[in-house]
Amino acid sequence: MPSPPPLDRLAALLPPGRVLTDAESLAAFGRDWSEIHLPPPAAVVLPRAVAEVAAVVRFANEHRVPLVPSGGRTGMSGGAVASAGEVVVSLARLDRVLDFDPVDRTVRVEAGAVTRGVQEFAAARGLCFPIDFASSGSSQIGGNIATNAGGLKVIRHGTMRDRVAGLKVVTGRGDLLDLNRGLVKNATGYDLRHLFIGSEGTLGLIVEATLRLTAPPPPRGVLLLAVPALPHLLDLLCAFRAAVALSAFELFCDTSLRHVLAARRLERPLAAVSPFYALVEFDRPDGAAEDAALAVVERAVAAGWASDAVVAQDEADCRRLWLLRESIAESIAPEDPHKNDISVTVSRLPAFLAEVERVVRASYPDAPVLWYGHVGDGNLHLNVLRPEGLDPAEFARRCREVDERVFEVVAAHGGSVSAEHGVGLLKKDYLGYSRSAAEIAAMRGIKAVFDPNGILNPGKLFDTAEEEPT
Amino acid sequence: MPSPPPLDRLAALLPPGRVLTDAESLAAFGRDWSEIHLPPPAAVVLPRAVAEVAAVVRFANEHRVPLVPSGGRTGMSGGAVASAGEVVVSLARLDRVLDFDPVDRTVRVEAGAVTRGVQEFAAARGLCFPIDFASSGSSQIGGNIATNAGGLKVIRHGTMRDRVAGLKVVTGRGDLLDLNRGLVKNATGYDLRHLFIGSEGTLGLIVEATLRLTAPPPPRGVLLLAVPALPHLLDLLCAFRAAVALSAFELFCDTSLRHVLAARRLERPLAAVSPFYALVEFDRPDGAAEDAALAVVERAVAAGWASDAVVAQDEADCRRLWLLRESIAESIAPEDPHKNDISVTVSRLPAFLAEVERVVRASYPDAPVLWYGHVGDGNLHLNVLRPEGLDPAEFARRCREVDERVFEVVAAHGGSVSAEHGVGLLKKDYLGYSRSAAEIAAMRGIKAVFDPNGILNPGKLFDTAEEEPT
Repeated sequence: MPSPPPLDRLAALLPPGRVLTDAESLAAFGRDWSEIHLPPPAAVVLPRAVAEVAAVVRFANEHRVPLVPSGGRTGMSGGAVASAGEVVVSLARLDRVLDFDPVDRTVRVEAGAVTRGVQEFAAARGLCFPIDFASSGSSQIGGNIATNAGGLKVIRHGTMRDRVAGLKVVTGRGDLLDLNRGLVKNATGYDLRHLFIGSEGTLGLIVEATLRLTAPPPPRGVLLLAVPALPHLLDLLCAFRAAVALSAFELFCDTSLRHVLAARRLERPLAAVSPFYALVEFDRPDGAAEDAALAVVERAVAAGWASDAVVAQDEADCRRLWLLRESIAESIAPEDPHKNDISVTVSRLPAFLAEVERVVRASYPDAPVLWYGHVGDGNLHLNVLRPEGLDPAEFARRCREVDERVFEVVAAHGGSVSAEHGVGLLKKDYLGYSRSAAEIAAMRGIKAVFDPNGILNPGKLFDTAEEEPT
Repeated sequence: MPSPPPLDRLAALLPPGRVLTDAESLAAFGRDWSEIHLPPPAAVVLPRAVAEVAAVVRFANEHRVPLVPSGGRTGMSGGAVASAGEVVVSLARLDRVLDFDPVDRTVRVEAGAVTRGVQEFAAARGLCFPIDFASSGSSQIGGNIATNAGGLKVIRHGTMRDRVAGLKVVTGRGDLLDLNRGLVKNATGYDLRHLFIGSEGTLGLIVEATLRLTAPPPPRGVLLLAVPALPHLLDLLCAFRAAVALSAFELFCDTSLRHVLAARRLERPLAAVSPFYALVEFDRPDGAAEDAALAVVERAVAAGWASDAVVAQDEADCRRLWLLRESIAESIAPEDPHKNDISVTVSRLPAFLAEVERVVRASYPDAPVLWYGHVGDGNLHLNVLRPEGLDPAEFARRCREVDERVFEVVAAHGGSVSAEHGVGLLKKDYLGYSRSAAEIAAMRGIKAVFDPNGILNPGKLFDTAEEEPT
């Protein structure tokens, strides 16, 4: 057990009020949406300037105090959880919009800027920040970048990675790096920016980002299809992609739908009950796009790819249909589901899903299993609910066992054990299913380059050599 | 001087015919389009399988033989030049198309596949590989990735980086890494794929890539505008971007145009002589898009942003207008111009160009100076021709001197001393104008992770610690 960090010295380095140690703050800042419960952090630091972040990192190196970078703490994998009495560095008060350029269509923000605020800032200037997900109201830009967040419109706009034109980070060494500075083209060696995107706070603290905005979206069309069999999902995806400009192609199963209908007291959107449903969003700048989409629906029903369909008649309808997809996670949250966030290439999705379903059904014969996700990205969210009467500890044990079998299928299909939730604490034991030993060794080498004393988010993503059991 | 590599042992490791030492091969494979003339390499190896590449790297580590990875050798910065008697590893015979998936819209190719061949492969399947440049007929995919090549449609399709869904590399340690495997979403730690993109063969040999294709392009419209003053370039860019879907927004100066007209014996495309011209390409799926573009032209002429314009009436016209832009480099090639490839954010372009122009005009009062480039990417190609009668060595000396002053302006604007040509040998002394000391130190650290013995492309991009003058 390391000695407690000299918090008085840390406080003396910073303006007053930056270091919190009250029980409420420690409890709030020590955990994320993964709801892992662990001992509280030693302290929470809330810097208000980049120089203060650098001072904290220098202090941490000098006294070998481990730091946990903290954004909106909406992560699902425990990446921002303080697991061993570390000092949490929250970027929440570094939240200013610094700069906007209408020609470059970029906005420069501090790491703590909240996603929804950036979306609103862009919209007020006739542009769009297209990264969007359920946690947009509390997730922060720095955290989005640290996990390469995806969300609902990846099929059109990519992930966070595709939005980051420039990045300022304070590395584990305490160096301030100003990476790429918003340039479109820059062939001057290794693009370190991309190394920090998705690094889950293990290489540096993201303090600022220059984000690329897009043109405002045209009016949208949304439709919901009842899909009787998995292979037809890809027939539908290809047919719609050829006919219209898609911005989302989402999936959910009937069990997911039933939970949403019950939680929200809604009527079924379609007369047909079907094992799967596809939600399709497309650009509808004019009647021609709508006609093209309707023609695909007709063709799909005739071919048996879909057994029923409903088309949104107006924007309120669009929102009603989206609600069915967007409410799934919160509808099942009270049941504390066991979650997985897995991906394969889109073409492998039907075979993969069928194979995972076989494993899961055999392993949890009496547990409700819910599928939903982003078909257009090859990304599925697998949720298993605890059967009534089963002891929670026994359920957790069985989930860990089944996870390994699911990840074997993921590995066999060349997939990812974490598509968008990151690795954090919860997935690090399974990293080897998606990354080779040589890759993980290279990651450890890179970690040592930027954070030689291992002060940044230790034990997340992977254990460094010293932490590993020998 | 190191002892000569034991080529007989290398040859014994590989099937017959893989190792060439004839003078013609050594001369051809030792240089690139930068036309640097240096001592020939010790040998050229042409592996035909990934396992052969790995065997060469193991041999190189064992005997401390430096290797120079070699693609189509169309580079402009000497990145693929053998500068000190190394062994060249050409990927030219690893050139197969391995796999194509119409759902994922990806093609998996070996590194030696020629760009044009991949474009044609995609087109034959109703899709498009949108990375295109003058060297498409001989540049190879592996080389394009190693330099993060850009080209003519970056404004729409991004650079090579945006096309690479998966990457197989043999690192300097001899490990075969299979990175990202074509996944859209994969949040399992550091994205090493992006580290190899643009690394100029200093971390590993790229042996295979999974490339993301796009939908086939709609019919295009092209127009050429005479632009009297630099700030109007951005007015034009913003006006066109708001009205149509742009796929290119290119610039060239009147001196560039005059060289093309003389070399190709063409008539002036516009009655007006103007200091600058903008070539605009946009999607023309229907008459509405053309009308929208023409409305912008009218508005631009009325506002004085353009003094004249010509609009392509058909595809042959489009090609004729593009020829004026695409022929510049070859029109001036016989004069062996001094080239620079610099970038800033788009919004800074007019101020930057004016400032560089002042430096250049003052430094070369009697040298013809040509500007052309990709306004939409903030990327300018600055070419200076040797004044008649000036000694070539004196011209080269003066160019080096002026370059430093130009790069000071680049640095002041937060720009890049190499937008798309890479660093290689020619720019490594200037890397510090675009990357900080801490960034370069991190790059050296990363190099040591993947290539601890420094066998891969030594002396390119930066000198490793041992090579530096002490």
